[in-house]
Amino acid sequence: MRLIRYGEKGSEKPGIVDDEHVLRDLSGEIDDIAGEVLSRRGLERLAAIDPKSLPKIDPSHRLGCPVGRVGHFIAIGQNYAEHASELGNDLPSEPLVFSKAPSSISGPHDDIPIPPGSTKLDWEVELAIVIGERAFAIEESEAMDHIAGFCLCNDVSERAFQKERGGQFIKGKSAPGFGPLGPWLVTPDRVGDPQALDLWLNVNGETCQRGSTSDMIFSVKHIVAYLSDFMQLEPGDIITTGTPSGVGAGMKPPKFLKDGDIVTLGIEGLGEQRQVVTTYRKN
Amino acid sequence: MRLIRYGEKGSEKPGIVDDEHVLRDLSGEIDDIAGEVLSRRGLERLAAIDPKSLPKIDPSHRLGCPVGRVGHFIAIGQNYAEHASELGNDLPSEPLVFSKAPSSISGPHDDIPIPPGSTKLDWEVELAIVIGERAFAIEESEAMDHIAGFCLCNDVSERAFQKERGGQFIKGKSAPGFGPLGPWLVTPDRVGDPQALDLWLNVNGETCQRGSTSDMIFSVKHIVAYLSDFMQLEPGDIITTGTPSGVGAGMKPPKFLKDGDIVTLGIEGLGEQRQVVTTYRKN
Repeated sequence: MRLIRYGEKGSEKPGIVDDEHVLRDLSGEIDDIAGEVLSRRGLERLAAIDPKSLPKIDPSHRLGCPVGRVGHFIAIGQNYAEHASELGNDLPSEPLVFSKAPSSISGPHDDIPIPPGSTKLDWEVELAIVIGERAFAIEESEAMDHIAGFCLCNDVSERAFQKERGGQFIKGKSAPGFGPLGPWLVTPDRVGDPQALDLWLNVNGETCQRGSTSDMIFSVKHIVAYLSDFMQLEPGDIITTGTPSGVGAGMKPPKFLKDGDIVTLGIEGLGEQRQVVTTYRKN
Repeated sequence: MRLIRYGEKGSEKPGIVDDEHVLRDLSGEIDDIAGEVLSRRGLERLAAIDPKSLPKIDPSHRLGCPVGRVGHFIAIGQNYAEHASELGNDLPSEPLVFSKAPSSISGPHDDIPIPPGSTKLDWEVELAIVIGERAFAIEESEAMDHIAGFCLCNDVSERAFQKERGGQFIKGKSAPGFGPLGPWLVTPDRVGDPQALDLWLNVNGETCQRGSTSDMIFSVKHIVAYLSDFMQLEPGDIITTGTPSGVGAGMKPPKFLKDGDIVTLGIEGLGEQRQVVTTYRKN
Protein backbone atom coordinates (compact mmCIF):
# COMPACT_ATOMS: atom_id res chain seq x y z
CA MET A 1 0.00 0.00 0.00
CA ARG A 2 0.90 3.60 -0.53
CA LEU A 3 -0.65 5.66 2.27
CA ILE A 4 -0.93 9.44 2.33
CA ARG A 5 -2.15 12.28 4.55
CA TYR A 6 -3.73 15.23 2.74
CA GLY A 7 -5.09 18.66 3.63
CA GLU A 8 -3.85 21.68 5.55
CA LYS A 9 -0.95 21.30 7.95
CA GLY A 10 -2.14 20.15 11.35
CA SER A 11 -5.49 18.84 10.09
CA GLU A 12 -4.46 16.24 7.52
CA LYS A 13 -6.80 13.37 6.68
CA PRO A 14 -5.74 9.82 5.81
CA GLY A 15 -5.81 8.44 2.29
CA ILE A 16 -4.41 5.78 -0.01
CA VAL A 17 -3.07 5.76 -3.57
CA ASP A 18 -4.67 3.01 -5.64
CA ASP A 19 -2.95 1.02 -8.41
CA GLU A 20 -4.17 3.50 -11.04
CA HIS A 21 -2.51 6.30 -9.01
CA VAL A 22 -5.89 7.69 -7.93
CA LEU A 23 -5.96 9.20 -4.43
CA ARG A 24 -8.70 7.73 -2.24
CA ASP A 25 -10.01 8.93 1.11
CA LEU A 26 -9.57 6.73 4.20
CA SER A 27 -11.17 9.08 6.71
CA GLY A 28 -14.32 6.95 6.82
CA GLU A 29 -12.18 3.99 7.97
CA ILE A 30 -9.52 5.44 10.29
CA ASP A 31 -8.89 8.80 11.97
CA ASP A 32 -5.22 9.02 11.05
CA ILE A 33 -2.18 7.12 9.75
CA ALA A 34 -0.75 6.89 13.25
CA GLY A 35 -0.42 4.75 16.36
CA GLU A 36 -2.31 1.46 16.22
CA VAL A 37 -3.09 1.86 12.50
CA LEU A 38 0.64 1.30 11.85
CA SER A 39 0.69 -2.06 13.63
CA ARG A 40 0.69 -5.29 11.66
CA ARG A 41 -2.99 -5.82 12.48
CA GLY A 42 -3.86 -2.21 11.59
CA LEU A 43 -2.14 -2.42 8.22
CA GLU A 44 -3.74 -5.81 7.48
CA ARG A 45 -7.12 -4.28 8.15
CA LEU A 46 -6.40 -1.47 5.68
CA ALA A 47 -5.07 -3.91 3.09
CA ALA A 48 -8.38 -5.79 3.21
CA ILE A 49 -10.27 -2.71 1.98
CA ASP A 50 -10.89 -2.46 -1.77
CA PRO A 51 -9.49 1.01 -2.64
CA LYS A 52 -12.08 1.29 -5.43
CA SER A 53 -14.78 1.35 -2.74
CA LEU A 54 -13.31 4.54 -1.25
CA PRO A 55 -14.17 8.13 -2.29
CA LYS A 56 -11.75 9.78 -4.71
CA ILE A 57 -9.74 12.78 -3.46
CA ASP A 58 -9.13 15.90 -5.52
CA PRO A 59 -5.40 15.51 -6.38
CA SER A 60 -4.80 19.26 -5.97
CA HIS A 61 -4.85 18.87 -2.18
CA ARG A 62 -1.66 19.56 -0.29
CA LEU A 63 0.09 16.39 0.86
CA GLY A 64 1.35 16.24 4.42
CA CYS A 65 3.81 13.94 6.12
CA PRO A 66 2.27 10.47 5.59
CA VAL A 67 2.53 9.64 9.30
CA GLY A 68 0.61 11.46 12.03
CA ARG A 69 1.55 12.05 15.69
CA VAL A 70 5.24 11.26 15.10
CA GLY A 71 6.70 10.76 18.55
CA HIS A 72 10.40 10.67 17.80
CA PHE A 73 12.24 11.75 14.66
CA ILE A 74 15.59 9.99 14.77
CA ALA A 75 18.39 10.29 12.23
CA ILE A 76 21.53 8.35 11.37
CA GLY A 77 24.61 10.31 10.28
CA GLN A 78 27.41 9.36 7.91
CA ASN A 79 25.86 6.06 6.87
CA TYR A 80 27.29 6.09 3.33
CA ALA A 81 31.09 5.83 3.03
CA GLU A 82 31.51 8.47 0.31
CA HIS A 83 29.39 10.97 2.23
CA ALA A 84 31.39 10.46 5.43
CA SER A 85 34.61 11.13 3.52
CA GLU A 86 33.26 14.16 1.61
CA LEU A 87 32.66 15.77 5.01
CA GLY A 88 36.17 14.79 6.15
CA ASN A 89 35.03 12.17 8.68
CA ASP A 90 36.30 8.67 9.39
CA LEU A 91 33.84 5.85 8.81
CA PRO A 92 31.72 5.34 11.92
CA SER A 93 32.35 2.08 13.78
CA GLU A 94 28.72 2.04 14.93
CA PRO A 95 25.70 4.11 13.87
CA LEU A 96 25.95 7.83 14.60
CA VAL A 97 22.56 8.77 16.10
CA PHE A 98 20.98 12.20 16.50
CA SER A 99 17.46 13.57 16.44
CA LYS A 100 15.44 16.20 14.62
CA ALA A 101 12.71 18.24 16.35
CA PRO A 102 9.26 16.81 15.53
CA SER A 103 8.25 20.42 14.70
CA SER A 104 10.64 20.25 11.72
CA ILE A 105 8.33 17.77 9.97
CA SER A 106 6.64 19.03 6.80
CA GLY A 107 4.91 17.78 3.71
CA PRO A 108 6.85 16.55 0.67
CA HIS A 109 6.20 19.68 -1.40
CA ASP A 110 6.13 22.34 1.34
CA ASP A 111 8.53 25.27 1.16
CA ILE A 112 11.80 25.21 3.08
CA PRO A 113 12.01 28.55 4.94
CA ILE A 114 15.60 29.71 5.53
CA PRO A 115 15.73 30.23 9.32
CA PRO A 116 17.00 33.57 10.69
CA GLY A 117 20.80 33.58 10.84
CA SER A 118 21.22 30.65 8.45
CA THR A 119 24.24 30.80 6.12
CA LYS A 120 24.85 27.14 5.21
CA LEU A 121 21.53 25.52 4.30
CA ASP A 122 22.03 22.07 2.80
CA TRP A 123 20.14 19.05 1.51
CA GLU A 124 20.23 15.27 2.15
CA VAL A 125 18.07 12.70 0.34
CA GLU A 126 17.37 9.77 2.66
CA LEU A 127 15.37 6.58 3.09
CA ALA A 128 13.20 6.89 6.22
CA ILE A 129 11.87 3.97 8.25
CA VAL A 130 8.44 4.19 9.93
CA ILE A 131 8.08 2.11 13.10
CA GLY A 132 4.87 0.09 13.36
CA GLU A 133 5.32 -1.94 16.53
CA ARG A 134 7.06 -1.08 19.81
CA ALA A 135 10.69 -2.31 19.92
CA PHE A 136 13.17 -2.48 22.78
CA ALA A 137 16.29 -4.65 22.89
CA ILE A 138 15.30 -6.63 19.80
CA GLU A 139 17.49 -8.71 17.48
CA GLU A 140 18.28 -7.78 13.88
CA SER A 141 16.29 -10.84 12.76
CA GLU A 142 13.17 -9.34 14.39
CA ALA A 143 13.57 -5.83 12.98
CA MET A 144 11.25 -6.14 9.97
CA ASP A 145 8.38 -7.18 12.27
CA HIS A 146 8.56 -3.71 13.84
CA ILE A 147 8.60 -1.70 10.59
CA ALA A 148 5.33 -0.34 9.14
CA GLY A 149 6.98 0.92 5.98
CA PHE A 150 9.27 3.43 4.37
CA CYS A 151 9.17 6.95 3.01
CA LEU A 152 11.33 9.53 1.31
CA CYS A 153 12.96 12.19 3.51
CA ASN A 154 14.94 15.34 2.89
CA ASP A 155 17.10 15.68 6.01
CA VAL A 156 17.48 19.44 5.55
CA SER A 157 20.55 20.64 7.47
CA GLU A 158 22.09 23.96 8.48
CA ARG A 159 25.82 23.18 8.59
CA ALA A 160 26.87 26.19 10.66
CA PHE A 161 24.20 25.41 13.29
CA GLN A 162 25.15 21.71 13.12
CA LYS A 163 28.93 22.00 13.33
CA GLU A 164 29.91 25.42 14.66
CA ARG A 165 27.52 25.90 17.59
CA GLY A 166 28.62 23.35 20.15
CA GLY A 167 28.87 19.73 19.21
CA GLN A 168 25.53 17.96 19.04
CA PHE A 169 23.90 17.80 15.57
CA ILE A 170 20.31 18.54 16.72
CA LYS A 171 20.78 22.34 16.40
CA GLY A 172 21.34 22.12 12.65
CA LYS A 173 18.58 19.62 11.90
CA SER A 174 15.49 20.99 13.57
CA ALA A 175 14.12 24.25 12.10
CA PRO A 176 10.55 24.34 10.71
CA GLY A 177 10.50 22.76 7.25
CA PHE A 178 13.72 20.80 7.83
CA GLY A 179 11.91 17.46 7.68
CA PRO A 180 9.94 16.97 4.43
CA LEU A 181 8.54 13.41 4.51
CA GLY A 182 6.51 11.58 1.90
CA PRO A 183 4.64 11.72 -0.43
CA TRP A 184 3.79 8.15 0.62
CA LEU A 185 4.23 5.70 3.43
CA VAL A 186 4.94 2.55 1.42
CA THR A 187 4.49 -0.81 3.10
CA PRO A 188 7.41 -3.28 3.01
CA ASP A 189 5.63 -5.74 0.66
CA ARG A 190 5.54 -3.04 -1.99
CA VAL A 191 9.09 -1.72 -1.39
CA GLY A 192 10.90 -5.04 -1.86
CA ASP A 193 14.51 -5.06 -0.68
CA PRO A 194 15.12 -1.75 1.16
CA GLN A 195 18.86 -2.18 0.50
CA ALA A 196 18.46 -2.02 -3.30
CA LEU A 197 16.80 1.34 -3.95
CA ASP A 198 18.20 4.12 -6.14
CA LEU A 199 17.95 7.60 -4.66
CA TRP A 200 18.73 11.03 -6.11
CA LEU A 201 18.48 14.75 -5.44
CA ASN A 202 18.68 17.74 -7.80
CA VAL A 203 18.98 21.47 -7.05
CA ASN A 204 17.52 23.71 -9.76
CA GLY A 205 17.47 20.70 -12.08
CA GLU A 206 21.15 19.92 -11.64
CA THR A 207 22.09 16.50 -10.26
CA CYS A 208 23.70 16.71 -6.82
CA GLN A 209 23.16 13.31 -5.23
CA ARG A 210 22.76 9.95 -6.94
CA GLY A 211 23.22 6.74 -5.02
CA SER A 212 21.80 3.43 -3.87
CA THR A 213 20.70 2.20 -0.48
CA SER A 214 22.93 -0.80 -1.21
CA ASP A 215 25.84 1.46 -0.19
CA MET A 216 24.64 1.97 3.38
CA ILE A 217 27.27 1.09 5.99
CA PHE A 218 24.57 -0.01 8.46
CA SER A 219 21.45 -1.64 7.03
CA VAL A 220 17.83 -0.82 7.87
CA LYS A 221 17.55 -3.97 9.99
CA HIS A 222 20.79 -3.26 11.81
CA ILE A 223 19.76 0.33 12.55
CA VAL A 224 16.40 -0.64 14.04
CA ALA A 225 17.89 -3.36 16.25
CA TYR A 226 20.82 -1.13 17.23
CA LEU A 227 18.59 1.80 18.24
CA SER A 228 16.38 -0.53 20.25
CA ASP A 229 19.35 -1.21 22.55
CA PHE A 230 19.32 2.45 23.62
CA MET A 231 15.67 3.50 23.49
CA GLN A 232 12.20 2.04 23.12
CA LEU A 233 10.92 2.67 19.58
CA GLU A 234 7.20 3.42 19.38
CA PRO A 235 4.64 3.17 16.55
CA GLY A 236 4.94 6.34 14.46
CA ASP A 237 8.60 6.96 15.27
CA ILE A 238 10.56 7.84 12.14
CA ILE A 239 14.21 6.94 11.56
CA THR A 240 15.95 8.54 8.61
CA THR A 241 18.94 6.47 7.59
CA GLY A 242 21.63 8.81 6.24
CA THR A 243 22.50 10.27 2.86
CA PRO A 244 24.83 9.40 -0.03
CA SER A 245 27.56 11.82 -1.19
CA GLY A 246 26.78 15.03 -3.05
CA VAL A 247 25.65 17.42 -0.31
CA GLY A 248 26.47 21.12 -0.62
CA ALA A 249 28.97 21.12 2.26
CA GLY A 250 31.03 18.50 0.42
CA MET A 251 31.38 20.45 -2.83
CA LYS A 252 34.56 22.33 -3.68
CA PRO A 253 33.82 25.16 -3.09
CA PRO A 254 30.83 24.40 -0.83
CA LYS A 255 27.45 25.35 -2.24
CA PHE A 256 24.40 26.15 -0.11
CA LEU A 257 20.72 26.77 -0.74
CA LYS A 258 19.42 30.30 -1.30
CA ASP A 259 16.00 31.93 -1.63
CA GLY A 260 14.22 30.68 -4.75
CA ASP A 261 16.21 27.46 -5.18
CA ILE A 262 14.18 24.40 -6.09
CA VAL A 263 15.08 21.03 -4.58
CA THR A 264 13.72 17.85 -6.17
CA LEU A 265 14.45 14.37 -4.88
CA GLY A 266 13.25 10.82 -5.10
CA ILE A 267 13.71 7.19 -4.15
CA GLU A 268 12.77 4.28 -6.41
CA GLY A 269 9.23 3.17 -5.48
CA LEU A 270 8.80 5.86 -2.80
CA GLY A 271 7.86 8.82 -5.01
CA GLU A 272 9.31 12.29 -5.39
CA GLN A 273 9.43 15.57 -3.49
CA ARG A 274 9.80 19.18 -4.67
CA GLN A 275 10.56 22.06 -2.34
CA VAL A 276 11.04 25.78 -2.92
CA VAL A 277 13.54 27.52 -0.65
CA THR A 278 12.08 30.73 0.79
CA THR A 279 13.11 33.44 3.22
CA TYR A 280 11.57 32.96 6.67
CA ARG A 281 9.15 35.70 7.64
CA LYS A 282 7.85 36.00 11.16
CA ASN A 283 4.06 36.16 11.29
CA MET B 1 -1.16 25.81 40.57
CA ARG B 2 0.35 22.40 41.07
CA LEU B 3 -0.98 20.12 38.33
CA ILE B 4 -0.63 16.34 38.28
CA ARG B 5 -1.47 13.36 36.11
CA TYR B 6 -2.47 10.18 37.97
CA GLY B 7 -3.28 6.58 37.12
CA GLU B 8 -1.66 3.78 35.15
CA LYS B 9 1.04 4.62 32.62
CA GLY B 10 -0.48 5.58 29.28
CA SER B 11 -3.93 6.30 30.70
CA GLU B 12 -3.23 9.03 33.24
CA LYS B 13 -5.98 11.48 34.20
CA PRO B 14 -5.47 15.18 35.03
CA GLY B 15 -5.61 16.54 38.54
CA ILE B 16 -4.57 19.39 40.79
CA VAL B 17 -3.09 19.64 44.28
CA ASP B 18 -5.00 22.12 46.44
CA ASP B 19 -3.50 24.36 49.12
CA GLU B 20 -4.20 21.74 51.79
CA HIS B 21 -2.18 19.22 49.69
CA VAL B 22 -5.33 17.30 48.78
CA LEU B 23 -5.31 15.77 45.27
CA ARG B 24 -8.37 16.78 43.22
CA ASP B 25 -9.62 15.36 39.93
CA LEU B 26 -9.69 17.62 36.84
CA SER B 27 -10.99 15.02 34.40
CA GLY B 28 -14.46 16.59 34.44
CA GLU B 29 -12.88 19.85 33.20
CA ILE B 30 -10.13 18.84 30.74
CA ASP B 31 -9.06 15.64 29.04
CA ASP B 32 -5.33 16.02 29.76
CA ILE B 33 -2.60 18.41 30.94
CA ALA B 34 -1.39 18.86 27.37
CA GLY B 35 -1.54 21.02 24.25
CA GLU B 36 -3.96 23.96 24.52
CA VAL B 37 -4.49 23.42 28.25
CA LEU B 38 -0.88 24.58 28.73
CA SER B 39 -1.47 27.91 26.98
CA ARG B 40 -1.90 31.12 28.96
CA ARG B 41 -5.65 31.03 28.30
CA GLY B 42 -5.89 27.33 29.20
CA LEU B 43 -4.07 27.83 32.50
CA GLU B 44 -6.15 30.92 33.34
CA ARG B 45 -9.27 28.84 32.83
CA LEU B 46 -7.97 26.18 35.25
CA ALA B 47 -6.94 28.85 37.78
CA ALA B 48 -10.51 30.15 37.82
CA ILE B 49 -11.82 26.80 39.13
CA ASP B 50 -12.20 26.47 42.90
CA PRO B 51 -10.22 23.28 43.70
CA LYS B 52 -12.60 22.58 46.60
CA SER B 53 -15.38 22.07 44.04
CA LEU B 54 -13.46 19.16 42.46
CA PRO B 55 -13.68 15.50 43.53
CA LYS B 56 -10.89 14.28 45.82
CA ILE B 57 -8.51 11.64 44.47
CA ASP B 58 -7.29 8.68 46.50
CA PRO B 59 -3.65 9.67 47.18
CA SER B 60 -2.47 6.07 46.70
CA HIS B 61 -2.76 6.42 42.91
CA ARG B 62 0.43 6.24 40.88
CA LEU B 63 1.58 9.68 39.68
CA GLY B 64 2.63 10.00 36.05
CA CYS B 65 4.61 12.68 34.24
CA PRO B 66 2.52 15.84 34.87
CA VAL B 67 2.48 16.70 31.15
CA GLY B 68 0.75 14.58 28.51
CA ARG B 69 1.60 14.16 24.81
CA VAL B 70 5.13 15.51 25.22
CA GLY B 71 6.34 16.24 21.69
CA HIS B 72 10.01 16.92 22.27
CA PHE B 73 12.14 16.17 25.31
CA ILE B 74 15.14 18.48 25.06
CA ALA B 75 18.07 18.64 27.45
CA ILE B 76 20.89 21.08 28.17
CA GLY B 77 24.31 19.64 29.08
CA GLN B 78 27.01 21.05 31.33
CA ASN B 79 24.99 24.05 32.48
CA TYR B 80 26.57 24.27 35.93
CA ALA B 81 30.27 25.19 36.05
CA GLU B 82 31.27 22.67 38.74
CA HIS B 83 29.51 19.83 36.90
CA ALA B 84 31.26 20.65 33.61
CA SER B 85 34.64 20.54 35.37
CA GLU B 86 33.89 17.33 37.35
CA LEU B 87 33.40 15.63 33.96
CA GLY B 88 36.63 17.18 32.65
CA ASN B 89 34.96 19.55 30.20
CA ASP B 90 35.61 23.22 29.45
CA LEU B 91 32.71 25.56 30.15
CA PRO B 92 30.39 25.70 27.14
CA SER B 93 30.39 29.03 25.26
CA GLU B 94 26.75 28.47 24.29
CA PRO B 95 24.18 25.94 25.50
CA LEU B 96 24.99 22.30 24.75
CA VAL B 97 21.74 20.81 23.40
CA PHE B 98 20.72 17.17 23.05
CA SER B 99 17.48 15.24 23.29
CA LYS B 100 16.02 12.32 25.19
CA ALA B 101 13.58 9.86 23.57
CA PRO B 102 10.00 10.70 24.58
CA SER B 103 9.62 6.99 25.43
CA SER B 104 12.10 7.56 28.30
CA ILE B 105 9.50 9.63 30.16
CA SER B 106 8.19 8.12 33.39
CA GLY B 107 6.41 9.08 36.57
CA PRO B 108 8.27 10.62 39.52
CA HIS B 109 8.25 7.44 41.61
CA ASP B 110 8.49 4.79 38.87
CA ASP B 111 11.36 2.29 38.92
CA ILE B 112 14.47 2.90 36.83
CA PRO B 113 15.15 -0.39 34.98
CA ILE B 114 18.83 -0.95 34.21
CA PRO B 115 18.88 -1.43 30.41
CA PRO B 116 20.61 -4.54 28.98
CA GLY B 117 24.35 -3.91 28.62
CA SER B 118 24.40 -0.96 31.01
CA THR B 119 27.51 -0.61 33.19
CA LYS B 120 27.55 3.11 34.08
CA LEU B 121 24.05 4.16 35.17
CA ASP B 122 24.05 7.66 36.65
CA TRP B 123 21.74 10.35 38.06
CA GLU B 124 21.20 14.08 37.42
CA VAL B 125 18.72 16.25 39.35
CA GLU B 126 17.44 19.03 37.07
CA LEU B 127 14.92 21.83 36.75
CA ALA B 128 12.68 21.15 33.72
CA ILE B 129 10.80 23.82 31.78
CA VAL B 130 7.38 23.03 30.27
CA ILE B 131 6.52 25.01 27.13
CA GLY B 132 3.00 26.46 27.02
CA GLU B 133 2.96 28.54 23.84
CA ARG B 134 4.67 27.99 20.48
CA ALA B 135 8.03 29.78 20.21
CA PHE B 136 10.33 30.34 17.23
CA ALA B 137 13.04 33.00 16.99
CA ILE B 138 11.89 34.80 20.13
CA GLU B 139 13.82 37.21 22.35
CA GLU B 140 14.90 36.44 25.91
CA SER B 141 12.48 39.14 27.13
CA GLU B 142 9.59 37.14 25.63
CA ALA B 143 10.63 33.75 27.01
CA MET B 144 8.44 33.68 30.13
CA ASP B 145 5.33 34.22 27.97
CA HIS B 146 6.00 30.82 26.40
CA ILE B 147 6.52 28.86 29.62
CA ALA B 148 3.60 26.97 31.22
CA GLY B 149 5.57 26.02 34.29
CA PHE B 150 8.33 23.94 35.79
CA CYS B 151 8.87 20.45 37.12
CA LEU B 152 11.50 18.28 38.72
CA CYS B 153 13.44 15.91 36.41
CA ASN B 154 15.95 13.13 36.94
CA ASP B 155 17.98 13.14 33.70
CA VAL B 156 19.00 9.50 34.12
CA SER B 157 22.13 8.82 32.06
CA GLU B 158 24.13 5.79 30.96
CA ARG B 159 27.66 7.18 30.68
CA ALA B 160 29.11 4.38 28.54
CA PHE B 161 26.22 4.70 26.05
CA GLN B 162 26.55 8.50 26.17
CA LYS B 163 30.33 8.85 25.80
CA GLU B 164 31.78 5.63 24.40
CA ARG B 165 29.35 4.75 21.60
CA GLY B 166 29.87 7.45 19.00
CA GLY B 167 29.63 11.05 19.97
CA GLN B 168 26.03 12.23 20.26
CA PHE B 169 24.58 12.12 23.81
CA ILE B 170 21.10 10.81 22.84
CA LYS B 171 22.20 7.15 23.11
CA GLY B 172 22.91 7.49 26.84
CA LYS B 173 19.82 9.48 27.74
CA SER B 174 16.90 7.60 26.23
CA ALA B 175 16.16 4.18 27.73
CA PRO B 176 12.74 3.50 29.29
CA GLY B 177 12.58 5.08 32.74
CA PHE B 178 15.41 7.53 32.03
CA GLY B 179 13.08 10.53 32.28
CA PRO B 180 11.22 10.69 35.62
CA LEU B 181 9.25 13.97 35.62
CA GLY B 182 7.06 15.48 38.31
CA PRO B 183 5.35 15.02 40.76
CA TRP B 184 3.85 18.40 39.78
CA LEU B 185 3.80 20.87 36.94
CA VAL B 186 4.05 24.11 38.93
CA THR B 187 2.98 27.35 37.27
CA PRO B 188 5.45 30.27 37.27
CA ASP B 189 3.41 32.42 39.69
CA ARG B 190 3.91 29.73 42.33
CA VAL B 191 7.58 29.01 41.55
CA GLY B 192 8.84 32.57 41.95
CA ASP B 193 12.36 33.19 40.60
CA PRO B 194 13.40 30.01 38.73
CA GLN B 195 17.05 31.04 39.20
CA ALA B 196 16.87 30.86 43.00
CA LEU B 197 15.81 27.27 43.73
CA ASP B 198 17.74 24.77 45.83
CA LEU B 199 18.00 21.28 44.36
CA TRP B 200 19.39 18.04 45.77
CA LEU B 201 19.74 14.32 45.08
CA ASN B 202 20.54 11.42 47.40
CA VAL B 203 21.43 7.79 46.64
CA ASN B 204 20.48 5.35 49.42
CA GLY B 205 20.03 8.32 51.73
CA GLU B 206 23.53 9.69 51.12
CA THR B 207 23.82 13.22 49.72
CA CYS B 208 25.28 13.27 46.21
CA GLN B 209 24.09 16.53 44.68
CA ARG B 210 23.24 19.77 46.40
CA GLY B 211 23.08 23.02 44.47
CA SER B 212 21.08 26.03 43.42
CA THR B 213 19.63 27.04 40.06
CA SER B 214 21.37 30.39 40.71
CA ASP B 215 24.56 28.63 39.55
CA MET B 216 23.28 27.89 36.02
CA ILE B 217 25.59 29.19 33.31
CA PHE B 218 22.64 29.82 30.97
CA SER B 219 19.37 30.93 32.56
CA VAL B 220 15.90 29.52 31.90
CA LYS B 221 15.00 32.58 29.80
CA HIS B 222 18.21 32.40 27.82
CA ILE B 223 17.76 28.68 27.11
CA VAL B 224 14.22 29.09 25.79
CA ALA B 225 15.13 32.01 23.53
CA TYR B 226 18.33 30.28 22.40
CA LEU B 227 16.58 27.01 21.49
CA SER B 228 13.92 28.95 19.59
CA ASP B 229 16.62 30.09 17.15
CA PHE B 230 17.13 26.48 16.08
CA MET B 231 13.71 24.86 16.39
CA GLN B 232 10.08 25.72 16.93
CA LEU B 233 9.10 24.90 20.50
CA GLU B 234 5.57 23.56 20.88
CA PRO B 235 3.15 23.39 23.84
CA GLY B 236 4.07 20.32 25.89
CA ASP B 237 7.74 20.31 24.89
CA ILE B 238 9.96 19.78 27.91
CA ILE B 239 13.43 21.26 28.34
CA THR B 240 15.54 19.97 31.19
CA THR B 241 18.21 22.50 32.07
CA GLY B 242 21.31 20.67 33.29
CA THR B 243 22.58 19.37 36.61
CA PRO B 244 24.86 20.63 39.38
CA SER B 245 28.00 18.71 40.40
CA GLY B 246 27.86 15.42 42.27
CA VAL B 247 27.01 12.85 39.59
CA GLY B 248 28.44 9.33 39.85
CA ALA B 249 30.77 9.75 36.87
CA GLY B 250 32.45 12.69 38.60
CA MET B 251 33.25 10.82 41.83
CA LYS B 252 36.74 9.47 42.55
CA PRO B 253 36.45 6.57 41.98
CA PRO B 254 33.28 6.82 39.86
CA LYS B 255 30.16 5.33 41.43
CA PHE B 256 27.20 4.03 39.43
CA LEU B 257 23.69 2.81 40.23
CA LYS B 258 23.00 -0.87 40.82
CA ASP B 259 19.94 -3.03 41.33
CA GLY B 260 18.12 -2.08 44.53
CA ASP B 261 19.57 1.41 44.88
CA ILE B 262 17.12 4.11 45.90
CA VAL B 263 17.38 7.58 44.37
CA THR B 264 15.59 10.50 46.03
CA LEU B 265 15.68 14.04 44.72
CA GLY B 266 13.90 17.36 45.02
CA ILE B 267 13.74 21.00 44.07
CA GLU B 268 12.43 23.74 46.38
CA GLY B 269 8.72 24.24 45.62
CA LEU B 270 8.62 21.50 42.95
CA GLY B 271 8.29 18.45 45.20
CA GLU B 272 10.28 15.26 45.48
CA GLN B 273 10.85 12.02 43.56
CA ARG B 274 11.86 8.53 44.71
CA GLN B 275 12.99 5.80 42.32
CA VAL B 276 14.10 2.21 42.87
CA VAL B 277 16.76 0.90 40.46
CA THR B 278 15.77 -2.51 39.10
CA THR B 279 17.10 -5.03 36.61
CA TYR B 280 15.34 -4.82 33.24
CA ARG B 281 13.32 -7.91 32.39
CA LYS B 282 11.91 -8.43 28.92
CA ASN B 283 8.18 -9.13 28.96
